[in-house]
Amino acid sequence: MKVRVLYSGGQDSSLSAVLLEPFFDVELVTCSFGSASWRHAGRAAEAIGFPFRVLKLSPEVMEGCIDLMLKYGYPRYGINYVHLKALEAAAKGGGYVADGTRRDDHSPALTMAEVKSLEMRLDVQYIRPLAGYGRHAIDALVKQHFEIVEGPAIEKSDYESEIRSSIIEKYGKETVSRLFPQEHPQSRVMRRLQK
Amino acid sequence: MKVRVLYSGGQDSSLSAVLLEPFFDVELVTCSFGSASWRHAGRAAEAIGFPFRVLKLSPEVMEGCIDLMLKYGYPRYGINYVHLKALEAAAKGGGYVADGTRRDDHSPALTMAEVKSLEMRLDVQYIRPLAGYGRHAIDALVKQHFEIVEGPAIEKSDYESEIRSSIIEKYGKETVSRLFPQEHPQSRVMRRLQK
Repeated sequence: MKVRVLYSGGQDSSLSAVLLEPFFDVELVTCSFGSASWRHAGRAAEAIGFPFRVLKLSPEVMEGCIDLMLKYGYPRYGINYVHLKALEAAAKGGGYVADGTRRDDHSPALTMAEVKSLEMRLDVQYIRPLAGYGRHAIDALVKQHFEIVEGPAIEKSDYESEIRSSIIEKYGKETVSRLFPQEHPQSRVMRRLQK
Repeated sequence: MKVRVLYSGGQDSSLSAVLLEPFFDVELVTCSFGSASWRHAGRAAEAIGFPFRVLKLSPEVMEGCIDLMLKYGYPRYGINYVHLKALEAAAKGGGYVADGTRRDDHSPALTMAEVKSLEMRLDVQYIRPLAGYGRHAIDALVKQHFEIVEGPAIEKSDYESEIRSSIIEKYGKETVSRLFPQEHPQSRVMRRLQK
């Protein structure tokens, strides 16, 4: 059974792939709006030994995302929207799609209604391998399986960096600072410790 | 890392153990109020090749459960209460505990507040390997990994059979029929198909 895992090169989506590996044929998929930031994920995918593919998301998805962020004044609904569109893109062809969202994540997070709708509309099964794991359990598994680099300035391939750049271009730096007041810590996987 | 998995011998707790196996040292744990129904789980545990242990729950837990069932008029809160007490019993000694509850299960299901409380009070990490899987994905994995028997009359080692017997003894058959109007389908694992 083949599963396409939305992949950023960070610890969560990497761990998600490793948890699925004994049971599925895993393919890592990174969505991109056209910039080269997917290369960070590509290098991490190579480092942990999974096949990797880039999926292009349309400019309309970017516009819809920024529209939601400006409307609400914070990133949550925009990020959720892009994540849902990325899952839909990865789900083309049916089968299984997965991501690295955690039990304790608030965003991106699909509602149960969105999950059921995704699964029915696209005849796909959506798997969240980390949904049943809390923070400490994830930290322990990550430590066991990966060498990572962490910090606010680590570049990985989540759509956030492309979205920020696009907002700066159209609305200026102040708007980005207002929408994203906090930098959250990033991680990128450098090496796999066990296989 | 050792994990104790609450185990009934049914397909969900068996699949939970198999999903954890590549990453943890799995021990299956069946809770019992004193009857011999744990033997069904013991046979299934042997069939799928995991170490197995029985944990005794106190008569007070049974009384508390029946009290909640009679109070609400349906089993949900009573079942949740026993499940929480079973997790607490399995959590003694810290580390990791797990169960076979699914994404789409309503009962037993801990609230997020109960999960955090369990983890903090007992210094344990609670893992739900099936929390990120929908029904069709679970069906496909079960089919791939187990030979099972299914039906309303299949005996496994969930506490429900012991609770029903106790209610019949104290309050009669009518009370059981009122509290549990529907028989839900049961499964028991007979054999493992891959290892």
